[in-house]
Amino acid sequence: MKLYDGGRAPNPRRVRIFLAEKGIAVPSEQVDLGKMAHKADAYTAVNPLQRLPALVLDDGTVITESIAICRYFEAEQPKPALFGTGAKQIALIEMWQRRLELNLFVPVAQVFRHTHPAMKDFEVPQVPAWGEANRPRVTDFLHLLDRELSNRRYAAGDELSVADITGLIAIDFMKPGKLTVPPEMTNVLRWHAELSARPSASA
Amino acid sequence: MKLYDGGRAPNPRRVRIFLAEKGIAVPSEQVDLGKMAHKADAYTAVNPLQRLPALVLDDGTVITESIAICRYFEAEQPKPALFGTGAKQIALIEMWQRRLELNLFVPVAQVFRHTHPAMKDFEVPQVPAWGEANRPRVTDFLHLLDRELSNRRYAAGDELSVADITGLIAIDFMKPGKLTVPPEMTNVLRWHAELSARPSASA
Repeated sequence: MKLYDGGRAPNPRRVRIFLAEKGIAVPSEQVDLGKMAHKADAYTAVNPLQRLPALVLDDGTVITESIAICRYFEAEQPKPALFGTGAKQIALIEMWQRRLELNLFVPVAQVFRHTHPAMKDFEVPQVPAWGEANRPRVTDFLHLLDRELSNRRYAAGDELSVADITGLIAIDFMKPGKLTVPPEMTNVLRWHAELSARPSASA
Repeated sequence: MKLYDGGRAPNPRRVRIFLAEKGIAVPSEQVDLGKMAHKADAYTAVNPLQRLPALVLDDGTVITESIAICRYFEAEQPKPALFGTGAKQIALIEMWQRRLELNLFVPVAQVFRHTHPAMKDFEVPQVPAWGEANRPRVTDFLHLLDRELSNRRYAAGDELSVADITGLIAIDFMKPGKLTVPPEMTNVLRWHAELSARPSASA
């Protein structure tokens, strides 16, 4: 088994945090995004979509998509359950993992990729108006999240889940896009500080 | 239990097809997207993100995000397994469900929402350049999908899964964006025809 890892990029980090919370070690190989190694032939043969991370199983099966990789390990080692147990908790965690991904992480990424000069070769074509259109979406969702976090510890309930991991990488990815969590969002800031203090955050 | 349904829109249809494949009937209420009823106070109280569908459980818990709703029913009634069983199949189905959603359905939706005059009140602001930037992404992904479907019946293997349902709604959503599957993509067309012929497709 081998994990193709991508250093500081948010999706590779999402998988590393998940594995750290599970206490699972996987042999890995770094693919240098800064040198465009993810677009080179060697990695394209692993993942034709040229994105990181990717997990190669012992039988040669390639699993891409960070959440699919996380689900593989959840099925192999169910505890601690980071995707939930029982229909209601499973659905709530999936809902919040998707809300945090689609309404926070994706808009944050669009701002960065479409407005930052360093992303010119990664996002072709850059559409600055689209990047700008995503700024208020980030703020709008953070307002909703702050209200939700006023009455519970984690995104999907009182237990840590994969939704929180997605939330952590999304908030941390605001910095390169020059986005910040407004100081009045005390619940979001409390939640982010707690996640950041876990040993897994530095994985 | 009540399902807030949204008629012909693709995500509500995704859940109806899933339920039809499971043989599950759920009481539902129509929310008229054409009349902007999803932005009215009554529905905003159910889902502050103002999107459809939403499932309200008997204890009042609200589940939004179509895939989260599908997972609720998968956990309640595991057969037929549309999210897979065993770590490898679970991961492959999650990978293909996400690939078909993020690399086909989302770009198709961006083309429609950012270039079609009828979407002016739904997508604010419309960014036509972003819509156009998504057209080649649709074609690129269809090429990859066509190669993959040359050696197996369904998106994630030889059995129907939720990934195929996402693929079906994505392909059908190409029409309002004036996108078409090129005739040389015979594997995609065969797969789409087979899915469309299932009774669930008209749910």
